[in-house]
Amino acid sequence: MKPMIEFTPENRYGHRVLLTPGPLTTTASVRAAMRDDIGTWDDDAIELVREIRAALVELANGDDLTCTLMQGSGSMGVECVLGSAIPRNAAKVLILNNGAYGVRMIRSCRALGIPFVEMRDSEEETHDPARVEKILMEDASITHVAAVHCETTTGLVNPLREIGLAVARQKRRFTVDAISSFGAYATGVGADIDFSAGPIDHLVGSSNKCVEGVPGFSFIISRRAAVEECAGNARSYALDLHDQWHGFETRGKFRFTPPTHVLMAFRQALRELRAEGGVPARERRYKDNRDTLIAGMKKLGFEPLIPASIQSHIITTFLFPTPHFNFDRFYRQLRELGYIIYPGKLTHRDTFRIGNIGSIGRCEIEGLLGAIAKVTAGSSAAR
Amino acid sequence: MKPMIEFTPENRYGHRVLLTPGPLTTTASVRAAMRDDIGTWDDDAIELVREIRAALVELANGDDLTCTLMQGSGSMGVECVLGSAIPRNAAKVLILNNGAYGVRMIRSCRALGIPFVEMRDSEEETHDPARVEKILMEDASITHVAAVHCETTTGLVNPLREIGLAVARQKRRFTVDAISSFGAYATGVGADIDFSAGPIDHLVGSSNKCVEGVPGFSFIISRRAAVEECAGNARSYALDLHDQWHGFETRGKFRFTPPTHVLMAFRQALRELRAEGGVPARERRYKDNRDTLIAGMKKLGFEPLIPASIQSHIITTFLFPTPHFNFDRFYRQLRELGYIIYPGKLTHRDTFRIGNIGSIGRCEIEGLLGAIAKVTAGSSAAR
Repeated sequence: MKPMIEFTPENRYGHRVLLTPGPLTTTASVRAAMRDDIGTWDDDAIELVREIRAALVELANGDDLTCTLMQGSGSMGVECVLGSAIPRNAAKVLILNNGAYGVRMIRSCRALGIPFVEMRDSEEETHDPARVEKILMEDASITHVAAVHCETTTGLVNPLREIGLAVARQKRRFTVDAISSFGAYATGVGADIDFSAGPIDHLVGSSNKCVEGVPGFSFIISRRAAVEECAGNARSYALDLHDQWHGFETRGKFRFTPPTHVLMAFRQALRELRAEGGVPARERRYKDNRDTLIAGMKKLGFEPLIPASIQSHIITTFLFPTPHFNFDRFYRQLRELGYIIYPGKLTHRDTFRIGNIGSIGRCEIEGLLGAIAKVTAGSSAAR
Repeated sequence: MKPMIEFTPENRYGHRVLLTPGPLTTTASVRAAMRDDIGTWDDDAIELVREIRAALVELANGDDLTCTLMQGSGSMGVECVLGSAIPRNAAKVLILNNGAYGVRMIRSCRALGIPFVEMRDSEEETHDPARVEKILMEDASITHVAAVHCETTTGLVNPLREIGLAVARQKRRFTVDAISSFGAYATGVGADIDFSAGPIDHLVGSSNKCVEGVPGFSFIISRRAAVEECAGNARSYALDLHDQWHGFETRGKFRFTPPTHVLMAFRQALRELRAEGGVPARERRYKDNRDTLIAGMKKLGFEPLIPASIQSHIITTFLFPTPHFNFDRFYRQLRELGYIIYPGKLTHRDTFRIGNIGSIGRCEIEGLLGAIAKVTAGSSAAR
């Protein structure tokens, strides 16, 4: 099969269009921003870090927030917060778990020796804020709550605002993994991500999600008072939130070598997010991607796993159309046509996933749907 | 002042030539390798990881070695090894410390709750292998030794081979921070880095040093048996060496999102290292850089801090030529001419540093010397 996308230096895509949850399709201009080497001690790097931290705080849209960048993946950022925000004595964290990223928080707490209780829900159901509140009322030993906003496992979006309000009423501390959602869900008073109404202390995001940068670091947006309280808590030197933040505040620098090229790409991505019209415009584009995708997939015989009411605009999980559906062949055929999709992550059901995020719009979604129509034509696989 | 280097997309440099300990000057082709987006689940990523791990093991030049890549900075890689290699009970590590990177190991051990003793030497002296051996003979509770090969603080190179032989005679385990040296010091039987003679269990390197990639991950080269023994030791989920390695061995993949673009740059850098003639050729070029630099700097009135016998070919520390030397002005003037140098890191003496590593040769060193002559001409600063 002839690829539908051509790879040239001028092309806005790389080799292929990624319809994945990140790393995702970035613009050629974001990638071109990596075409320089800068020194970490130089004003160039200090200004780069300053602009990124300020732009992220602005995106979070709350009062008295601050931002810490952390080398590594998003999961390192989450472990950094868990290991730094929870005091060493007499603290216990309630972990809300309805997918693989909830499980990761449990694994970090276990390795770090942090006492925790788990509130587990099915991977196909969102957390009930009333149940969270009940658990907090009944267990006074719980001091902190940690939740995932959008679970990439299925693509469901948990009711973060209502969970936050319940945690606030019960006067506990709150850490949010918003890695897959930050940049594509509204922030501010009354919004999904609301630092003013709820008690969000720390929110973790990552460079390669809805800001549309490339992978290499995570960021933690914190209430200033919350990060100040972390001093001396950390179970790690490398992943010490307070120490890292303190370095930024006092010297404007990372403690250890930062991924300078990835940071330059991220600055460009932040500028392009603003140029697009900020989070509201990006949210509209992703919702349109999702709606176009789901409508088109249904026509081709593919059904989404979860109901529309809890479906995020980040990634959509589809059920195998038949028990004999050959996902590997399907994946490879689409890959040859220039489209990269994503496997499923559920243990008990056969699924695959298609991302709605990245530098893609209706044109790319329709291109993918055309490719899927082509590879399933004549086959009974998707009927 | 007119910059001596022009920034164009075709230029082999970025804006400026970095004479720093990393991030360093990379080739335009290494940076161009980041011009694509790839999916982490895809064969592209699996092959990328496979090629990098195999090339690193080949560079290490020992028997039955294996390689683990870890997202984040080099110091995260070092903490990952310390937290994973040292069993939770009845183990104590001897940390050899003659600079900032020895201090970092101490800080990691302290945060992780790992018992340690420190053998401290002046920042201007290398460790004495006989003293290491004596400490090990006298303290049977020490089970592990950790050392830095080249201390970037000053640019001195510790006698790694002799330390390793002492550790081997005393039958202890050995972890090496070779972040700034790996790729530029000989490996193999009888060499500086010798996995066969000494008891090196784990050696940590980083993407943005002498392989000449861009920053974003570290790598750990381990004896296979040593990494197998790490199962269940880790004080962290994110920085669990065994779990990360197991993911590579069984699925060929990172556990968490890897820095795909940085990995693509690193693969290109590895290919260019081979094309240059491998470690021997690189070592020759860096030594020539160092010798050209020191000879030229002496003519301009700058003296190196440490004696030639312990001076690495990685980075050279120079003393301020006069008590009133204005380093900030010196730095900024060189920066305007297109050259980025590096500040000192000693607490008790006024110094600055110039890196010999990266995609630079005699031409760039002579260019820098010309720029230094220019900015110090007529001033008494460097006399």
